[in-house]
Amino acid sequence: MRRMKAVIAYDGTDFSGYQAQPGKRTVQSEIENVLAIMHKGEKVRVFASGRTDARVHATGQVIHFDTPLSIPSDKYQMALNAQLPGDVRILEMEEVDQDFHARFSAKGKRYRYKWNCEEVQSPFKRNYTVETRGRKPDVNKMEEGAEYLVGTHDFTSFCAASTPVEDKVRTIYSIHFEWHDQELHMVIEGNGFLYNMVRIIAGTLWEVGIGKREPESIKEILEAKNREMAGTTAPPHGLYLEKVFY
Amino acid sequence: MRRMKAVIAYDGTDFSGYQAQPGKRTVQSEIENVLAIMHKGEKVRVFASGRTDARVHATGQVIHFDTPLSIPSDKYQMALNAQLPGDVRILEMEEVDQDFHARFSAKGKRYRYKWNCEEVQSPFKRNYTVETRGRKPDVNKMEEGAEYLVGTHDFTSFCAASTPVEDKVRTIYSIHFEWHDQELHMVIEGNGFLYNMVRIIAGTLWEVGIGKREPESIKEILEAKNREMAGTTAPPHGLYLEKVFY
Repeated sequence: MRRMKAVIAYDGTDFSGYQAQPGKRTVQSEIENVLAIMHKGEKVRVFASGRTDARVHATGQVIHFDTPLSIPSDKYQMALNAQLPGDVRILEMEEVDQDFHARFSAKGKRYRYKWNCEEVQSPFKRNYTVETRGRKPDVNKMEEGAEYLVGTHDFTSFCAASTPVEDKVRTIYSIHFEWHDQELHMVIEGNGFLYNMVRIIAGTLWEVGIGKREPESIKEILEAKNREMAGTTAPPHGLYLEKVFY
Repeated sequence: MRRMKAVIAYDGTDFSGYQAQPGKRTVQSEIENVLAIMHKGEKVRVFASGRTDARVHATGQVIHFDTPLSIPSDKYQMALNAQLPGDVRILEMEEVDQDFHARFSAKGKRYRYKWNCEEVQSPFKRNYTVETRGRKPDVNKMEEGAEYLVGTHDFTSFCAASTPVEDKVRTIYSIHFEWHDQELHMVIEGNGFLYNMVRIIAGTLWEVGIGKREPESIKEILEAKNREMAGTTAPPHGLYLEKVFY
């Protein structure tokens, strides 16, 4: 058996998230369906670096799977892309060692969150950015608030209250903001992210940016270890999984 | 009654074109539905500069309609946008003279056609550009071919054979090509366009670009006044109505 690693992109709009669920259209099941065809009906399980929710996008998700087929990686990639629907694409593919695991070998991730601050949102952006109806936040304040999050902390306040993971300590390496015309992007890197963590950080820093909270409040929220202290979970369609580090 | 002019944008992906058709989701009917609500159920007919087909986009379509409501233009625009679905947006709105007509007052139009020449097409571009699977045309040859089209000609060879219009003489002011990273855009301006004309021009010039036809063949195609002489009709989702001139 060969182990194949692939970097994939998907438009999350029409998916019920990454992970296979009975009766739902998911990224995992679309890829597994095509692999099953290539393997004459045999199920090939695909492992990803992590799940993404419905409507969340990826420009650099990583997956791996095992295959007995001796097709060269580039031809393998072309064969998959030829059969996959247009909203999932294999961007890169290579054979890796058997000990590589898309999830367990991951050392960190980069996510991007996009707000569109145009007065009138372009119809072409409705599924790809979160509309602020012309409201422009104070990015200096958002950066100031973000500083409290960088480093190693218990992120209990910044993950869905239902998260079953025991250890909620994670390290955020960096958070920075970029303007791309009227779009504001938050780019965040860390060694791992809890469920909804990036969206709760985005939602809370947005509230700092529009003056609803002070930058210093971020410190208190972290210390409280209570999800209710943080802001709202920002909508899924502004979020992109951009890169997985190994 | 006041006459309102509006510049609108729409993502054509989920529409059966601009024009109202029974049982279909169209741009015109979405706007007319919202206007009917604003006018307490009374039908307000919307007139556009022209139709666009299913999956064709617009970044600068123009419409007009008459209304007894005395709402200022900017508030009117906001009220419409608040109720319209996200894939149609009113970009600008103003009150105009009663003799303005979105279609009959139009002096010309600009369309844009987009090809995506990436090796692997981004999932985010699948509905907005036409995939060439990494193939890059010879743009000099396309420009050379385009030169024969610029000017006043009988465009019978470049419109759908079924077009009922008698007079097929139109003037093309300019055709130019632009690279935007891996995207090739054809920008075309003229005093008017026949049914499918831009897409047949795009499809035919593409064939020139990939060496399937010589640039000089465009002259012969024009002279033949026969649709069968021209190339294939390029797919709808690469096409954008960008501007209407008055």
